Amino acid sequence: MLNKHGELAVRKVYIAGIGQTPVSKGEDIRGRYMARDAIHGAMISAGVEAGDISALFVGNMMGGILGSQQQLGPLYADAAGLRGVEAMTMEAACGSGAAAVRIGYSAIAGGLHDLVVVCGMERMTHAPRDAVTLALATAADWELEGAHGESFISLNARLMALYMDRYGTRPEQFAPFAIAAHANALNNPNALLKKPIDLDAYLDSKVLVPPVKLMDAPPTCDGAAAIVLASEDVLRGLGRAGVSIEIVASAVGTDSLAIDRRADPLKLAGAELSSQRAYAQAGLKPGDMDIFELHDAYTVITALSLEAAGFAKPGEGTRLGEEGVTQIDGDLPIATMGGLKARGHPVGATGVYQIVETALQLSGEAGQNQVRGAETAMVQNIGGTGATVVTHILRAG
Amino acid sequence: MLNKHGELAVRKVYIAGIGQTPVSKGEDIRGRYMARDAIHGAMISAGVEAGDISALFVGNMMGGILGSQQQLGPLYADAAGLRGVEAMTMEAACGSGAAAVRIGYSAIAGGLHDLVVVCGMERMTHAPRDAVTLALATAADWELEGAHGESFISLNARLMALYMDRYGTRPEQFAPFAIAAHANALNNPNALLKKPIDLDAYLDSKVLVPPVKLMDAPPTCDGAAAIVLASEDVLRGLGRAGVSIEIVASAVGTDSLAIDRRADPLKLAGAELSSQRAYAQAGLKPGDMDIFELHDAYTVITALSLEAAGFAKPGEGTRLGEEGVTQIDGDLPIATMGGLKARGHPVGATGVYQIVETALQLSGEAGQNQVRGAETAMVQNIGGTGATVVTHILRAG
Repeated sequence: MLNKHGELAVRKVYIAGIGQTPVSKGEDIRGRYMARDAIHGAMISAGVEAGDISALFVGNMMGGILGSQQQLGPLYADAAGLRGVEAMTMEAACGSGAAAVRIGYSAIAGGLHDLVVVCGMERMTHAPRDAVTLALATAADWELEGAHGESFISLNARLMALYMDRYGTRPEQFAPFAIAAHANALNNPNALLKKPIDLDAYLDSKVLVPPVKLMDAPPTCDGAAAIVLASEDVLRGLGRAGVSIEIVASAVGTDSLAIDRRADPLKLAGAELSSQRAYAQAGLKPGDMDIFELHDAYTVITALSLEAAGFAKPGEGTRLGEEGVTQIDGDLPIATMGGLKARGHPVGATGVYQIVETALQLSGEAGQNQVRGAETAMVQNIGGTGATVVTHILRAG
Repeated sequence: MLNKHGELAVRKVYIAGIGQTPVSKGEDIRGRYMARDAIHGAMISAGVEAGDISALFVGNMMGGILGSQQQLGPLYADAAGLRGVEAMTMEAACGSGAAAVRIGYSAIAGGLHDLVVVCGMERMTHAPRDAVTLALATAADWELEGAHGESFISLNARLMALYMDRYGTRPEQFAPFAIAAHANALNNPNALLKKPIDLDAYLDSKVLVPPVKLMDAPPTCDGAAAIVLASEDVLRGLGRAGVSIEIVASAVGTDSLAIDRRADPLKLAGAELSSQRAYAQAGLKPGDMDIFELHDAYTVITALSLEAAGFAKPGEGTRLGEEGVTQIDGDLPIATMGGLKARGHPVGATGVYQIVETALQLSGEAGQNQVRGAETAMVQNIGGTGATVVTHILRAG
């Protein structure tokens, strides 16, 4: 990758190993053991020992609020046998996982480390529902939104209502996204929801905050996922059979937290910035992507993400679902292992799960959901209703 | 700086501007305006415009727990007129501020950014005392410590009791650290506590958890501090009269969160690792330091930090206070602007305040507390009772 002066600015970064725990629900799951299992899975997959690793970057949103536990960096390092390494936590709400990947990428790309682990972790299901609702609202602007009674669901409902009003979109036009996500999850052993749905099930699902229905939204769940990142030299020295995927772009774009402070609530400016920066870094364009593993937290966010990343014109994101483009056998598959909707959305872990699943796709190891011929993929993780957007472009090694 | 292969690994990084709000108490202080003021102060001091800056890294520990507000990266970027830049939050408990500095440093050193802002922010005084106590306990190991009734003060009390027992140290031997910090704060316009204390005031102060007295501990407070970091090329292009301090080392070391899991509770292994890594990066040794701006959260931590960083043998840290070495006119001044004890300890902001104050010292702008001839300084910020330790070595440019 070249900088603006035409000099080689950063080193190549590879995903050398991946690990994940099944997305789950359970009051007695202790976070450090979930994180340890994901980290060990990634280390085994990469063929590396604890002594090889010099940093651990953790993505988490609600450990302090729901679990009375901050300092997850050194906690998980200790639990995984990595005591002493550089370690800390990255927080960008629902985008925390990919934010940690971004920092891990930067550490390798910049030459500060040669081999690091990134772990995303979130536990939510041990906490009372009201506590979870309040904790999720901390992703929004508390002074301008949360303190006035807005929840994370109600803010997404505002976006969906605006979308339907401006573009005349009907509920059934959002349905293909949810139906395909549930279908894809059936073949993912680590997905939470293993229940196929059809249009009627979508339309008949419980209304949470109109027009958002249960089938527009992700489930509350727990999960941990991890990746090992390596420099090119170190990757070659590993001599093992694990994944070997290059991260050819890593970018973050932001916008105001409060929807009302944005120029146009239906334009995800942070996603547009993040995508454009990633395309520029990689020297690629939307048409080059074989997969777009996007942040389908709500069906309206799926539509807006497709538009912001340059795959559809404003108001036409839902058409990609209706026309089958975003299906597993379409031209631009999304949510290939179930997405946030059906694999589940353990908030601060989601961004790492997305990378793990995409690495499986690009390695030809995605089983029944394998996207044939997939070589290049974009992965996008969003914090809040679009305030922090982290985009990575991956390429088969 | 060279990597292990003898190649130039990373670029030089400079502190180009500094900003801070007065450390304060107040229920109606809104965090985003404190952060904005600190960021604008740093930008003005550096002579840079919003359009020049491409990233904002925020250090914060308790925004979600005490303020229902996460996502401080894009929130503060928006408040400071930097909407759109890469932004996220770093968390390492009381070491969050320096963790954010570390990531800002890495971004410039690695060639991913040329000009970034780092902001540390914490608000605590709007919350009930019990809530603050619980929030601070999230820096410890909740499962092994917090859930069993340990508070952050009680854990530090355990360390102090162990220290006094093992080394036969008497209460009055810790006093010089607190007395000097209070004296230094008198000349810092941004310090919270402006009250000189003597040995009697120290000895007579209220016992919090034996043997920790009020005068061994830092006050609860609010504050925000910020720095602008620049690459060498960009710094030269700025052409302004602001500070120009090189960061010659940046390192993180970690240890288990739980005190009982450590090989020796009185050896801060994370601090030793962090210090050794920093010395190795800079090619310097303890004797080269003109200032050690350390993490004097508790007087026992001051003693343990002096020992872990190589300035005193085990059990002899307090002697440096008794002999005047750590006084403002001694050979190794600490807490030069009041330290955590008297400037105040707005938790996630503290690590950035330490850097701001040290930059003032190395620029000859520390007023009545100016350490004469100060050219090289070590700055150390600790998360938990020693779980995350971030060390920077600064040199006058």
